[in-house]
Amino acid sequence: MFKKILIANRGEIALRIIRTCKEMGIKTVAVYSTADKESLHVRFADEAVCIGPPSSALSYLNIPNLIAAAEITNADAIHPGYGFLSENAEFSRICAENHIKFIGATPDMINSMGDKASAKATMKKAGVPTIPGSDGLLSSLEEGLKIARKSKYPVILKATAGGGGKGMRIVRSDEEFEKAWNDARAEAKASFGNDGLYLEKYIEEPRHIEIQLIGDQHGQVAHLSERDCSIQRRHQKLVEETPSPFITDELRENMGQAAIAGAMAISYEGVGTIEFLVDKNRDFYFMEMNTRIQVEHPITEEVIDYDLIKEQIKVAAGHKLTGKNYYPKMHAIECRINAEDVKNNFRPSPGKITNLHMPGGHGVRVDSHVYSGYTIPPNYDSMIAKLIVSAQTREEALVKMKRALSEFVIEGVNTTVPFHLKLMDDPDFKAGNFTTAFLDTFDFSSLK
Amino acid sequence: MFKKILIANRGEIALRIIRTCKEMGIKTVAVYSTADKESLHVRFADEAVCIGPPSSALSYLNIPNLIAAAEITNADAIHPGYGFLSENAEFSRICAENHIKFIGATPDMINSMGDKASAKATMKKAGVPTIPGSDGLLSSLEEGLKIARKSKYPVILKATAGGGGKGMRIVRSDEEFEKAWNDARAEAKASFGNDGLYLEKYIEEPRHIEIQLIGDQHGQVAHLSERDCSIQRRHQKLVEETPSPFITDELRENMGQAAIAGAMAISYEGVGTIEFLVDKNRDFYFMEMNTRIQVEHPITEEVIDYDLIKEQIKVAAGHKLTGKNYYPKMHAIECRINAEDVKNNFRPSPGKITNLHMPGGHGVRVDSHVYSGYTIPPNYDSMIAKLIVSAQTREEALVKMKRALSEFVIEGVNTTVPFHLKLMDDPDFKAGNFTTAFLDTFDFSSLK
Repeated sequence: MFKKILIANRGEIALRIIRTCKEMGIKTVAVYSTADKESLHVRFADEAVCIGPPSSALSYLNIPNLIAAAEITNADAIHPGYGFLSENAEFSRICAENHIKFIGATPDMINSMGDKASAKATMKKAGVPTIPGSDGLLSSLEEGLKIARKSKYPVILKATAGGGGKGMRIVRSDEEFEKAWNDARAEAKASFGNDGLYLEKYIEEPRHIEIQLIGDQHGQVAHLSERDCSIQRRHQKLVEETPSPFITDELRENMGQAAIAGAMAISYEGVGTIEFLVDKNRDFYFMEMNTRIQVEHPITEEVIDYDLIKEQIKVAAGHKLTGKNYYPKMHAIECRINAEDVKNNFRPSPGKITNLHMPGGHGVRVDSHVYSGYTIPPNYDSMIAKLIVSAQTREEALVKMKRALSEFVIEGVNTTVPFHLKLMDDPDFKAGNFTTAFLDTFDFSSLK
Repeated sequence: MFKKILIANRGEIALRIIRTCKEMGIKTVAVYSTADKESLHVRFADEAVCIGPPSSALSYLNIPNLIAAAEITNADAIHPGYGFLSENAEFSRICAENHIKFIGATPDMINSMGDKASAKATMKKAGVPTIPGSDGLLSSLEEGLKIARKSKYPVILKATAGGGGKGMRIVRSDEEFEKAWNDARAEAKASFGNDGLYLEKYIEEPRHIEIQLIGDQHGQVAHLSERDCSIQRRHQKLVEETPSPFITDELRENMGQAAIAGAMAISYEGVGTIEFLVDKNRDFYFMEMNTRIQVEHPITEEVIDYDLIKEQIKVAAGHKLTGKNYYPKMHAIECRINAEDVKNNFRPSPGKITNLHMPGGHGVRVDSHVYSGYTIPPNYDSMIAKLIVSAQTREEALVKMKRALSEFVIEGVNTTVPFHLKLMDDPDFKAGNFTTAFLDTFDFSSLK
C-alpha cells in the first residue's frame, strides 16, 4: 500500500480523499494556490505545499510544480480528484516516468476515451450501443436516406460547421427527408458558408444515466449500478440520484454489462464512469467515458455501502477485485450546493460566508470544504458543498432532502439552495418525469 | 396520523424529533425556556412557545405550562424525548386526560418499570434472567449461606444502609462466607449504625449491553438488537456501539427474546430499552427498562436502516408492526461530545462556542443543536453533539471515528473530544476488552 499520497486538487474532493487516506493510515500531502491557504484541505492534510498563485494554470494545472511537490515530500502516489489534471494523459505519463503512481487511468486509456470519435469507435467495436448515424459527412441525399432508414427514424441532420441549432433538422420519415435535406443545406450554407451535413439518430426525451465502474490490474471489471444525472443546466449537473426512477432491473443489468464490455475493451483499471443517453423507449447509447472519480460518486457509496475512494486507492495499489457487481439497496439523492445566484442566470457568487450551519441527522451526509468565516475565492468552481441524503425509498429521500435543505443556513453569498428546495416540490420531478431538457422550461424567476 | 406534535424537550433530541416530523409532514411545536430562545429547535419548528425561565423545574418540567402550550397550539400529541418528563407517569396520565397523545409509555408501564424492586419481580416472573440473591434483608448467617450457594459464587454482601463500598464483601466460597459475614456486619454497624445485610450474585467483569425494543398497540413486540454501553464514567455513558464486540449471534438472540418476553409481560408499546449486565461467562441479567427513546438510539438506526423516531410516532398513532426483528448489517459507534473539561473531573464547561466545524463525509452522522456563535447555557445537560460513524467492520468504524474526531473544531469551551481521541487509540478498547469498570483506570491526566 502507498505510504503517502499527494492530492493534486482542492475543495471538497481534496478533503474527501484526505478523509479516506486517514482512515487507511496513509499520509497525505495537500497542495494549494495562494488563494486557498485557509482551506480545510490544507488544514487536515499531514503536509501542505504551496504550488503557485490563484490562477489554475499556474497552480493546480502546473505539472512541474506538482511533481516537485511530490518529490520534496516523498509522496509515492498522486490522486488527481476530478477536473484539473485528472484526465490529462501527459500528467499521467509524467507521473509514471517519475515513479509516482498516478491514481487514475493510464495515458493510453485516457487518450482512447478522450477523443470522441475514437471513443465511439472503440465502444461500437466492443458491442456497446452507440448513436447510429453517418460516419462523418454525407455525400448525397440518397446516402442520407439510406443511413436514416438504417438508423431508424427520427433522425437529425446537422451542419458539420454548425452550432446554435442552425442547419439542423429533425426528420421523422422518408417523406420528410428531401425537404429537410434541402432546407438544412441552404441554412448551413447561409450561416456558415459550408453546406456539409451529417446525420445521427435523434434521441427522444433523453435521460443522462451513467454506470459506475471499477476495474483492477488483473483484468476484472465490475459495475456499481447507475446514477441518473438528467437534471442539468447547460450540461452542468445539479442533482443526481440512484437508482434512476426510469430504470428497470433488466435495463440496469444490460447497461451495466455493456459498460463492463466497454471498459474491458480498453483493459480499464481504476474507477470510471460510462455515460449513456437513454431514450423514451429505454434504448441506451454510449455518450462518453470519464476515466476518473466523479463529483456525484457519494450517492453510489450510500446505496451500496462502499467507499469508492478507498477501493480506487486499493486497486491502484494492485488489489484484486472479487468481480462482484453492486446493486442499490436504498435510494440516494445529491444536490450540488453552488455559490451561485440562481435568479441571475446562475452567476458565480464568491465572497465571505458570514454564517454557516449545515444540516445533519438521520440519512444526511455533507461533503464540504467550507466553514463559517471562509472566503470563497472567485478563481475556481463554485461548488461549496454536496448534500447527500439516503432513505429506503425515493419518496422518503425526497422529503429528507427537502428537510435537510430547509436547515441549510449560508449567509454572505448566494447559493443554489432555493432552486433545490423548489425542485423537491416540483410535481414532475417528484413523479420521476424528467429528461435532460427539464430545466429548459423550469421557472427560476419565482425563486426566493 | 398526528397533525401537530409538541416536543417537550430541548437540545439535539428536540431537533432530532422535528427533523423526522418534517419528513413525515407533521407540524411541530417547540417549547423553550428563556435560556434557549436562540436554540435551533426553536428556529426549525413550525411554532415555538416560551414555557418559563431557565430553571428546568419552572420550564421543561412544568406540566401545566406544557399542557397549556399544547392546547394553545392545538397539538394533538406530545413527544417527551429523553430525560425531563419522558418517564413521568403523572405527565403521561395528564396528557391522556387532556386528550393529547403522549408519545411514550402509559402510566402503568412507567410505574411498573420505575420502581426497581417491582420491575425486577415482573421481569423474573416473565422469565427474564435477574440477578439472583436474597429478597431483602438476610435473617441469619445460615440463610445467607443457603442463598449464596443457590445464587452461585461469587456473591456480594451489601449493607442495607450502605454506600461507598462500606459494609460490602465479595465472597467466593462457603469457606470464606462466615468471616465475610462478620466483617461486613461489623463494618456496617460502625459506619451506619445498622448491621442489616442483603446478598446478591456478584457480576464479574460486567458489561452494560441493552436491547432496543419496539412494541405496537396490537400486542406485537420486536427487538432491534443490542447496544454496548459499557464505556461509562460514574454511570454516565460516553461511548456506545453496535454490535457489541462481546456478543455472539446466539447470545444476541437469547437477550433479544428475553427482552421481548419482558416487554410482552407489561403489554409494552412504543420504543423502549431493556438494559442488561452481561458477565464474563456471557450470562446476562436484567438491570432496568427505559420506557422512552434513548440518547444512543442513532447507532441502532445506522446499522439496520431504520428511523426509530418515525416508527415510534407511527406505533403511537396505532400503526401495526410486522413482528420482524432487526439485526445489525454494519458497525456503528457513537461518541457523546459534551461541553466538559475532561482534565478537570469532567466539570461542565458552558459558554459561547466561538468557532465550530463539524466533521462530515462518508459514514459520518452528527446530531447536534449547536452552531458557531451559540452560547451553551449552564442550566442543562452538557451534551452538545452526538458523533456517529458507521462502517462495514468495527475496525473500520474505529478509524473512521478517529478521523471524524480529528476534524471536530470547537473553540470557546472544553469538550470530551480529546478523551474520545485517546480512547480510539487505546489497545484494550480497540481489542474490545472492556467492562463497565474500564474508565476507572483510564489515564485522563495525559489528555490534551
